[in-house]
Amino acid sequence: MKKNGSLEHLAEALRRLPGIGPKSAQRMAYHLLQHDREAASGLGHALLNAVDRIHHCASCNTFTEIDICETCQDAERDDSMLCVVETPSDQMMIEQTLTFKGMYFVLMGRLSPLDGIGPKDIYLEKLIARATNGIVKEVVLATNFTNEGEATAHYISETLKARGLKVSRLARGVPVGGELEYVDAGTIARAMLDRRTT
Amino acid sequence: MKKNGSLEHLAEALRRLPGIGPKSAQRMAYHLLQHDREAASGLGHALLNAVDRIHHCASCNTFTEIDICETCQDAERDDSMLCVVETPSDQMMIEQTLTFKGMYFVLMGRLSPLDGIGPKDIYLEKLIARATNGIVKEVVLATNFTNEGEATAHYISETLKARGLKVSRLARGVPVGGELEYVDAGTIARAMLDRRTT
Ligand SMILES: [Zn+2]
Ligand SMILES: [Zn+2]
Repeated sequence: MKKNGSLEHLAEALRRLPGIGPKSAQRMAYHLLQHDREAASGLGHALLNAVDRIHHCASCNTFTEIDICETCQDAERDDSMLCVVETPSDQMMIEQTLTFKGMYFVLMGRLSPLDGIGPKDIYLEKLIARATNGIVKEVVLATNFTNEGEATAHYISETLKARGLKVSRLARGVPVGGELEYVDAGTIARAMLDRRTT
Repeated sequence: MKKNGSLEHLAEALRRLPGIGPKSAQRMAYHLLQHDREAASGLGHALLNAVDRIHHCASCNTFTEIDICETCQDAERDDSMLCVVETPSDQMMIEQTLTFKGMYFVLMGRLSPLDGIGPKDIYLEKLIARATNGIVKEVVLATNFTNEGEATAHYISETLKARGLKVSRLARGVPVGGELEYVDAGTIARAMLDRRTT
């Protein structure tokens, strides 16, 4: 039985989503075409639109559609404090605690030598340039408390301290092995208040 | 913190995929934009392309880009036999057993009153018209052996027998509660040979 070009392509394209196997991809394709063509079109346009418009903030490295994101442009924020997080989700979690009014830098990942993810992949040079602008006084490391997040924090800490910066780390109010995205705001708030100099 | 239009839309659109929650959708969006923009573009085009081109075969009801699908156009097949399946995946599974050389009808679902899925949603009128064309001699019901699949088979059987058709059902070589898509070809082959008149 010969296969169907567009349908086969769709299933193959869905398979490239993280965590989606061949059976799930085929079921998704059938589901969309049978029950939710509007969602399929919507997702199609959203993907092309996002790829076209989204890039990294020149200052904090998060995803944005403008050159310098709104957070970085916010004159109310304390630009002597720079909080380093792994992902935009982590930044959002910290914002929700209302305990930090400084600036951010988003690594878009964490060091993971086994996966071939090195300093370049977490934009280390961009972070160094951002942190050593003469205005930042303290860098708060808020990477996850996983092994990789801790190793990343250690690496960045050594790098920035060698340049004379004060570097602190969220206190271990966050459970060991925990990921910020899944921790309640109260715990994160306490960890922010208890942050320690590294 | 104000959100990002294109990025937010993408996460929302990914959420409409079956089985994807808000956290997964956001992670997928970040992953695609950070690590696989090519996959994101590819999926975007594949979705729009599929929605634009894929419709139901006028004869067997499966997804196709042409009016009558290639299987239905295959002159080698026995058009006195009509096998009824729930999904295109189930049809593929049966084809792999090489035990059936007749025609197909794809319901694109199963009856499920609790979910509001009735006869119209499984294209019952189209199936009746197809089965009563004067050429079909036997209808083989190959819906899943789940409760809903069995109920669907029973309903279709009664409907078609009332119109004087011979109706058979795959033998219970398929484990009770099993879904065809996950059963080995040997078991399906045996069930096809042992099919019984209902
Ligand atoms: Zn920014
Ligand atoms: Zn067909």
